Amino acid sequence: MRILSLLTDFDVKDPFVAEMKAVIFSICPEPPTIIDITHEVERFNVRTGAFILAGAAPHFPEGTIHVAVVDPGVGSERRAILVETKHSLYVGPDNGLLIPAASREGILHVYELTNRSLMSDHISSTFHGRDIFAPVAAHVATGLKPETVGEEITNFVQLSFPEPSFNHRGVRCEVLHVDSFGNIITNVRPEKIEKLKLNDKKKLRIRGKQFPLRLVRTFSDLRGTEFGLLAGSQGFFEVACRQESAASRLRVRSGDVLRVEDA
Amino acid sequence: MRILSLLTDFDVKDPFVAEMKAVIFSICPEPPTIIDITHEVERFNVRTGAFILAGAAPHFPEGTIHVAVVDPGVGSERRAILVETKHSLYVGPDNGLLIPAASREGILHVYELTNRSLMSDHISSTFHGRDIFAPVAAHVATGLKPETVGEEITNFVQLSFPEPSFNHRGVRCEVLHVDSFGNIITNVRPEKIEKLKLNDKKKLRIRGKQFPLRLVRTFSDLRGTEFGLLAGSQGFFEVACRQESAASRLRVRSGDVLRVEDA
Amino acid sequence: MRILSLLTDFDVKDPFVAEMKAVIFSICPEPPTIIDITHEVERFNVRTGAFILAGAAPHFPEGTIHVAVVDPGVGSERRAILVETKHSLYVGPDNGLLIPAASREGILHVYELTNRSLMSDHISSTFHGRDIFAPVAAHVATGLKPETVGEEITNFVQLSFPEPSFNHRGVRCEVLHVDSFGNIITNVRPEKIEKLKLNDKKKLRIRGKQFPLRLVRTFSDLRGTEFGLLAGSQGFFEVACRQESAASRLRVRSGDVLRVEDA
Repeated sequence: MRILSLLTDFDVKDPFVAEMKAVIFSICPEPPTIIDITHEVERFNVRTGAFILAGAAPHFPEGTIHVAVVDPGVGSERRAILVETKHSLYVGPDNGLLIPAASREGILHVYELTNRSLMSDHISSTFHGRDIFAPVAAHVATGLKPETVGEEITNFVQLSFPEPSFNHRGVRCEVLHVDSFGNIITNVRPEKIEKLKLNDKKKLRIRGKQFPLRLVRTFSDLRGTEFGLLAGSQGFFEVACRQESAASRLRVRSGDVLRVEDA
Repeated sequence: MRILSLLTDFDVKDPFVAEMKAVIFSICPEPPTIIDITHEVERFNVRTGAFILAGAAPHFPEGTIHVAVVDPGVGSERRAILVETKHSLYVGPDNGLLIPAASREGILHVYELTNRSLMSDHISSTFHGRDIFAPVAAHVATGLKPETVGEEITNFVQLSFPEPSFNHRGVRCEVLHVDSFGNIITNVRPEKIEKLKLNDKKKLRIRGKQFPLRLVRTFSDLRGTEFGLLAGSQGFFEVACRQESAASRLRVRSGDVLRVEDA
Repeated sequence: MRILSLLTDFDVKDPFVAEMKAVIFSICPEPPTIIDITHEVERFNVRTGAFILAGAAPHFPEGTIHVAVVDPGVGSERRAILVETKHSLYVGPDNGLLIPAASREGILHVYELTNRSLMSDHISSTFHGRDIFAPVAAHVATGLKPETVGEEITNFVQLSFPEPSFNHRGVRCEVLHVDSFGNIITNVRPEKIEKLKLNDKKKLRIRGKQFPLRLVRTFSDLRGTEFGLLAGSQGFFEVACRQESAASRLRVRSGDVLRVEDA
């Protein structure tokens, strides 16, 4: 049994995702198990898609084939690729989307998808998810070797997330993602807690304003309207409130800079 | 083949649900069939989650394992439990979420999840759905006996829905749920129709206002803007309009009190 | 292995779709693979549901059973039907929903669902998706012959989409659908491109206003705020903008009339 994951910015209002699945099941004699990671990546936001894929991928079993499509350049000269890592395979556009997830597992090979016989007979200019990525992934799920999809390449598009910078006053970090609960996911890994030197004087600083911030274990440790810093489930420190959106209260978006510093 | 259902308030914008599924498929050699009941329970609303689970569960085949997570107390002292009934198994937090569904089937045993070897190696403080409930359910799906998950307990958290009160003028009932069509689901079971003594003089009374109400079989029996009372598909009388949200028109929410009485 | 697709206007906030799946898996000893086409068809909009189903169906493997429920007349005198085509089976209400998809494949037989033994024991008046369509489809998925579901009929409800009208100045077309990206799907098939006689003088005309329109291959060929006409992935010409909703900018809805004509 093969696991195949799907991540897109297609939404599920239209039949786009269903058409990808229909294509996959039309090709595979032994149907793979499909897990939808999400189809609600912010439209055209490759960085957010890459963040979500990188967070989810480590929980999937070895041999999973991840098909990810956030693809503003569909139909243009951007290439289509398959990335083989020590743990999984990734299929999608060559725009950086697959790279953070694949890099964490160790990239072995990157192939450009050029083997036309693995794609749909008619390839639309606007829906490579259905006409290129899904059928290629389905063929690989049936046991086809990764190297049959096309030529190996090395000059694929890179994408990485910024690292936080620590100094004697605290840390300057960046918002990698705001989740649907409104938790603000920073780029500081919990292992770095020593460097944070958290104490009662540390404040959360954002756009010239500052707020008290308490290190807590979980959401229900928070009281009233206070802001907390906790080791989140996606592998980073998160700024959170109790049953309320921290991002709405602070008007924070992905990409914003936060500081946790002495007042 | 084993059926495993999932119900959460996680939404599907983020990869939370997919991570639970990935963990389940990583554990089960024979993959269970997963049915998503919903992931859009109103955030932190244990009562709504319990209502939806109790409505859906009777339609599932015997032996289904229901994993439900609406869990504002995640990471706190609240316990994690498995409930064994005559028909199914339920895995989730000990906050009442599982109890209405399980009670209707007849609760046989409730176990606190304490067997650490059935959980993920690293247990986050904020995502027990992925790190405790999903792996325990997956192990049970592989055939592990329910009693291996931990100690049997009897003092689990109770949750039940209020009963309507009938009098000579009519009935005082409570709104258990407003569905996504805007139908107002009351706590009056269709079997109680005799007690309703519906006639042309009966009015729907809400917050001091009253509205005519007609007993109908289905939505298309309604004309124009009238309000109807019908035996709904979830096992309760519902107040409905024709192709319009009755709840929006009446500004009714879950938990509100309604009366159907002589004018 | 049998593929079963589901399309409804039920949304996934409530357990309606899950109850249909639970019923299907309760009946089928060998569980079919279920693909959700969408559950977010605009409420009660049979025409939109029919359009989405007709676009998605050709991508499914032979033998797929499509269950579609956009059913404002549920519980009334409207009939329930099974449509057998050369390629697939369709189960749903007799309100036209299934017909455009089935017609393209060639309708062989239409049966009214009257065999009570294939339905749920208790049939609600408001949820035939769960109590009639799902169980009948499940029985057919187990190998039951289509003709066992009921009597063959010929006077089923028709539904078809209007054809564009070409003249010497250009084309008068209709909006069949606005997808979730805001692309405006017209009823002009790409094969008709000769008839469009597109040139620099052609303008998009809508409600007395006109806009320049350029024929492009894909979204990223568009620059700035210009409107483009492209051969879309669902088999029709679409009016689109670059990473923006053309429908919002033009205030266009499904059913509106557009003209592409000499200025």
